[in-house]
Amino acid sequence: MSDFTVQQKVRFQHCDPAGIVFYPRYFEMINATVEEWFAQRLGVPFETLHGPLGAAVPTASLSVDFHAPSRLGDVLEFGLRPTRIGRSSVGLAVEAHCGGERRLSLESTLVFTTSDANGPAPWPEEMRARISRELGGTVSDA
Amino acid sequence: MSDFTVQQKVRFQHCDPAGIVFYPRYFEMINATVEEWFAQRLGVPFETLHGPLGAAVPTASLSVDFHAPSRLGDVLEFGLRPTRIGRSSVGLAVEAHCGGERRLSLESTLVFTTSDANGPAPWPEEMRARISRELGGTVSDA
Amino acid sequence: MSDFTVQQKVRFQHCDPAGIVFYPRYFEMINATVEEWFAQRLGVPFETLHGPLGAAVPTASLSVDFHAPSRLGDVLEFGLRPTRIGRSSVGLAVEAHCGGERRLSLESTLVFTTSDANGPAPWPEEMRARISRELGGTVSDA
Amino acid sequence: MSDFTVQQKVRFQHCDPAGIVFYPRYFEMINATVEEWFAQRLGVPFETLHGPLGAAVPTASLSVDFHAPSRLGDVLEFGLRPTRIGRSSVGLAVEAHCGGERRLSLESTLVFTTSDANGPAPWPEEMRARISRELGGTVSDA
Repeated sequence: MSDFTVQQKVRFQHCDPAGIVFYPRYFEMINATVEEWFAQRLGVPFETLHGPLGAAVPTASLSVDFHAPSRLGDVLEFGLRPTRIGRSSVGLAVEAHCGGERRLSLESTLVFTTSDANGPAPWPEEMRARISRELGGTVSDA
Repeated sequence: MSDFTVQQKVRFQHCDPAGIVFYPRYFEMINATVEEWFAQRLGVPFETLHGPLGAAVPTASLSVDFHAPSRLGDVLEFGLRPTRIGRSSVGLAVEAHCGGERRLSLESTLVFTTSDANGPAPWPEEMRARISRELGGTVSDA
Repeated sequence: MSDFTVQQKVRFQHCDPAGIVFYPRYFEMINATVEEWFAQRLGVPFETLHGPLGAAVPTASLSVDFHAPSRLGDVLEFGLRPTRIGRSSVGLAVEAHCGGERRLSLESTLVFTTSDANGPAPWPEEMRARISRELGGTVSDA
Repeated sequence: MSDFTVQQKVRFQHCDPAGIVFYPRYFEMINATVEEWFAQRLGVPFETLHGPLGAAVPTASLSVDFHAPSRLGDVLEFGLRPTRIGRSSVGLAVEAHCGGERRLSLESTLVFTTSDANGPAPWPEEMRARISRELGGTVSDA
């Protein structure tokens, strides 16, 4: 589904009394995946984004299906790819697998905001270029 | 929207470096709202559900819009109402407001599972009756 | 032990696969207790402390004993009292009980810091006076 | 201090509105370090401990000093070594560093419990032997 993947192990802290991942913890793992994607693919680690850039990328909406439960010790592979880019937004698709089994699939929209704009702001050029490249297809002279 | 509401205060633990609620924390608040609804409206506290009943109600899917950020100290009012009931599932709608402002709206599907069935199981009669009553409309002799 | 108490219910989110409170979650409850104490007894809610005051009260050290496990649905009563005040620090003692049973006892040291000082700063007079009053003994006309 | 170390990156989910690690999140990182130590050094991953073994290792007490704050993006190195072993307990010392700077030092006591014993139980021989070996010195015929 995606060529960007992050492995995360299901820890004790993620599991509930039923012995499976408590679903709010999945969103911490998903956010960690997004952080790594920003750092590795967009060249903007979250400490740069939230620090010098005075920016943030809050989640505006998301939709998720939990296909099968995950258990303590499972090593989950989170794949992420962008699905669309707007003036100040980006659509992301995330899936998590363990072995051959799909555990969850999510679609979300993040919005680029800055403290200067006190809300949504256009993507900086370099970030826009990199997201576009990730969106794939024929990327000409990127 | 709903006559079942739970107030929850935005704590330090919920907030991120941008000073607003980190969205995975919202799901903890939403889950607490669901717990209270099961206890107060369905007569089945989670300690009974997960204990003597040997059951659980994992979330199968959800869709959420975050309309406006919440900040430290905000007192959020979470309203919950069921939207549909299936053989072993229930649809829920949750909204959170602060003052007159809507902060989030969510739709989710929970599935009733038991360790006996090792998966989805039909709602116990009493729970089904109570959910149906909450669904409102003409509640006959449930 | 203390005349300042906050009740908190053990939620699904607090419990681990062993069915008891995962100890890092206790610190969220303890922090919520500290927040309420600052708001109700010191007259400085955390949103004021971290907002207009440009201050923070990081925990410098703590020591805790977990006497007995807590389970889903338990209503815990957290009692808090200050044990000492320094130029920019305060010592706190926190205990949590359920029914007659003591679940944990903690001693911690918090430090008042400001962004202006870029580190520890003397307590503002009004806060110092209030903490001193809470420390008890002969409280005159502070 | 220790030859067993685990690296963990400070994520957005760990940080508070002051931009530093919220101290309860450190305990999640510390617990992850303990999990890895059990898996790698004692040969008992938590999924085995909490699954087939029907055991758990709750924390009975801990004492921690937070020497300096950690920030988003910091890569922390957690070192762990056992300090003592009892019939059913183990003492652990954990330190976290970033660059040359010590961020926290903790001492804790964990207790081996089983559902059969409904409380503390003697360490299984193999685990006792492995912990003793980790305690160092001349481990003869363990």
